[in-house]
Amino acid sequence: MNFLEERIQKDGIVKEGNVLKVDSFLNHQMDIKLFRQMGEEWKRRFAEANINKILTIEASGIGIACIAAEYFNAPVVFAKKSKSINIEGDMYIAEVESFTHKCKNQVIVSKKFLTPEDHVLIIDDFLANGCALQGLISIVAQAGATLEGIGIAVEKGFQQGGRVIRNLGYHLESLAIVERMDAETGEIMFREQ
Amino acid sequence: MNFLEERIQKDGIVKEGNVLKVDSFLNHQMDIKLFRQMGEEWKRRFAEANINKILTIEASGIGIACIAAEYFNAPVVFAKKSKSINIEGDMYIAEVESFTHKCKNQVIVSKKFLTPEDHVLIIDDFLANGCALQGLISIVAQAGATLEGIGIAVEKGFQQGGRVIRNLGYHLESLAIVERMDAETGEIMFREQ
Repeated sequence: MNFLEERIQKDGIVKEGNVLKVDSFLNHQMDIKLFRQMGEEWKRRFAEANINKILTIEASGIGIACIAAEYFNAPVVFAKKSKSINIEGDMYIAEVESFTHKCKNQVIVSKKFLTPEDHVLIIDDFLANGCALQGLISIVAQAGATLEGIGIAVEKGFQQGGRVIRNLGYHLESLAIVERMDAETGEIMFREQ
Repeated sequence: MNFLEERIQKDGIVKEGNVLKVDSFLNHQMDIKLFRQMGEEWKRRFAEANINKILTIEASGIGIACIAAEYFNAPVVFAKKSKSINIEGDMYIAEVESFTHKCKNQVIVSKKFLTPEDHVLIIDDFLANGCALQGLISIVAQAGATLEGIGIAVEKGFQQGGRVIRNLGYHLESLAIVERMDAETGEIMFREQ
């Protein structure tokens, strides 16, 4: 097991309904030292890619993306889930469903911050059904930017999101892929990488 | 002018209705090198404080808080604006109004991640009327934790938020305080610090 799988084994909590709680270190309380290990590992896995911008989505992707950005020496753009009066002018828009919130969100990125010159690494904390990620990929495509890769912290390998993205030929690097988990025993099995 | 005031002068855009757009470097696209300067400066200004946890609020506070956390060697907890099924159990709750979204939000922090043992630095990107900040302060109080200080990137000095917080005796360090701005001329005047 790698450092993230070990941490999930240690501090992750499996709940009914395929919910994996990692809120003590990943998406509510955030362990910045762990985020640095993640950034370092993504830098290793995307060493060949020429990345000048990192794209994520609010809220829990932002912290991971910002720490990872230090290893790629690139700015971060985060897609917003609701239109704010502080965002004006032309925007890229994609519809995404939220697994956790059971609702549809419109995610938006200002056209000023993604252009055909950009070589983008998408970073997010979770990949399950892949709706959020598909929205981000659509926004990169709308911008005419180059998608160099996708870095995910925790992928739920038993849901379709990751398979679809890999079938589409994208370079997806999930640091931990949960193959199956059991709410009764608390057992978490990871995919061999 | 300090590094942040200079950057706001250079890239900030003043809009009608006292809106200061800093979305090219602070709260949509995020300049991580700038965030590091901010973290370093807060570390300097809070050098006396014994801080073991950083508290912020989603979404645009998270990136700044995570980079700042590297200088304080502390984890970050971010308050969430909407109840998620991934958060269960006891939570601290505060009502906050959003200036940008013109709505009321309930902000919540899991009781697991703030305790009477914590010495907290609150970090956020903006301080205007202070509603979000008051909610975070209330949550620190609910936890019985010690509020060591408050670090803000951009304070709108012509709104009441900062004055109220200083009157209450909190150690508030805003890296840039906008005294007045003019949407017609684009002029931005900062308070001498």
